[in-house]
Amino acid sequence: MAYDGTDFSGWAAQRDRRTVAGVLTEALLRLFPAVDSLTVAGRTDAGVHATGQVCHVDVPADRWWQLTATIVRRLAAVLPADVRVSAVREVPPSFDARFSALARRYEYRVSDAPHGVDPLRRRETLAWPRPLDVGALNAASARLCGEHDFAAYCRRKESATTIRTLRRLDWRRTPDGVLVATVEADAFCQAMVRSLVGALLAVGDGRRPVEWPATLLSRRARADQVVVAPPHGLTLVAVDYPEDPADFAARAELARNRRA
Amino acid sequence: MAYDGTDFSGWAAQRDRRTVAGVLTEALLRLFPAVDSLTVAGRTDAGVHATGQVCHVDVPADRWWQLTATIVRRLAAVLPADVRVSAVREVPPSFDARFSALARRYEYRVSDAPHGVDPLRRRETLAWPRPLDVGALNAASARLCGEHDFAAYCRRKESATTIRTLRRLDWRRTPDGVLVATVEADAFCQAMVRSLVGALLAVGDGRRPVEWPATLLSRRARADQVVVAPPHGLTLVAVDYPEDPADFAARAELARNRRA
Repeated sequence: MAYDGTDFSGWAAQRDRRTVAGVLTEALLRLFPAVDSLTVAGRTDAGVHATGQVCHVDVPADRWWQLTATIVRRLAAVLPADVRVSAVREVPPSFDARFSALARRYEYRVSDAPHGVDPLRRRETLAWPRPLDVGALNAASARLCGEHDFAAYCRRKESATTIRTLRRLDWRRTPDGVLVATVEADAFCQAMVRSLVGALLAVGDGRRPVEWPATLLSRRARADQVVVAPPHGLTLVAVDYPEDPADFAARAELARNRRA
Repeated sequence: MAYDGTDFSGWAAQRDRRTVAGVLTEALLRLFPAVDSLTVAGRTDAGVHATGQVCHVDVPADRWWQLTATIVRRLAAVLPADVRVSAVREVPPSFDARFSALARRYEYRVSDAPHGVDPLRRRETLAWPRPLDVGALNAASARLCGEHDFAAYCRRKESATTIRTLRRLDWRRTPDGVLVATVEADAFCQAMVRSLVGALLAVGDGRRPVEWPATLLSRRARADQVVVAPPHGLTLVAVDYPEDPADFAARAELARNRRA
């Protein structure tokens, strides 16, 4: 599914707040008599967008609901324009959108152009007031890849471990001059992508040395000097799952145990 | 310059309406004691966007204003986020943003996906409820190219001639499934791009034969059967001028005479 996070208080349902889970549940209840256990791959914060979010939900079994194309059409008719469900499929009970996931991939968009951000991309692009050096950004990013304790970049200890495997973190400049960071890991703790981006931007504009973001890893505790980058530049673009459905359960058990 | 047309009543200044020319003039008056003769290449309608709009304006001569990078920075600071001036340069008095232009290029975005439009592109993409055939769209479009009297596709006779040279009109499907029409002509009459797109969409979804849009050209009068496509799918992406500034005046005289 995809959403424009601008007008949402994040994914997770909250009383008296417009959230993606809340809006989606409301739409699903217009199609199904009951929905249960709505679970998402990446619980995005307020203001964060998605183009490739994945969630699962339990609905009562019935024949027409097997027609996933019909579900897509009916959801399109009842969902607001800032949320779209682009594809639906039936999955075995062993599939868990959160725990079966092998990796999450995010992109962060920053414009350092003197004139600011393209108006049609301003909801999803951060304006940066100083020029950014892609070489420095990539050099600092490369030192963060691999398995590390990312406690320095986690907002708070939300589970037993803050050890994550950062599979990819690199920056490119698009033809229209915007800088795009691609960040992929097995999982992220809260605000981790935005904390990494915040630290790297300080390197990119020359305020910190290239080694600085990696040296923070050794603290194993939240680093106060790291400014969390604003949410609107961030988009969840993809979630990877095992190709073979037989692996859904094993992967989920592994992930659950690691975070227990 | 670029703008998100969503919250503008078009380009042209109007009393009590938020327009691009109005907002730009206000910003320019914070930099210069006087601005005069603001002239634009394409007077876009309400709701139409731009990524490559061009305009010219007369300001009193002074030394620091030659520093066009400074003007870009100062305009970025005073303009609202839905308007950006990406580049400024000094031009000879013979340059006329409207009449010196050799061609205008627009893009029109349509999504025929069953699930609707990507939420982050919904301000600039039309949702179409039926599948569209790119082959049929291109076959019908090819018959419209060249020099013709486009009166059938003009909202009203606004000048002596409705003869235009359509240099390019073709459709492609982007990797994310969106259909993009590229439309280029020496000049367009009011609502011409959206009228062409409206007629072609009727071919694309099978309601009209491939020959239909071209047969309307022979009427030389507004065709009532043509539904003007909504403005939000349309973006002015580029304006071409003579490479040699010595040609600005001759081109402008030619264009003025043709429309006189």
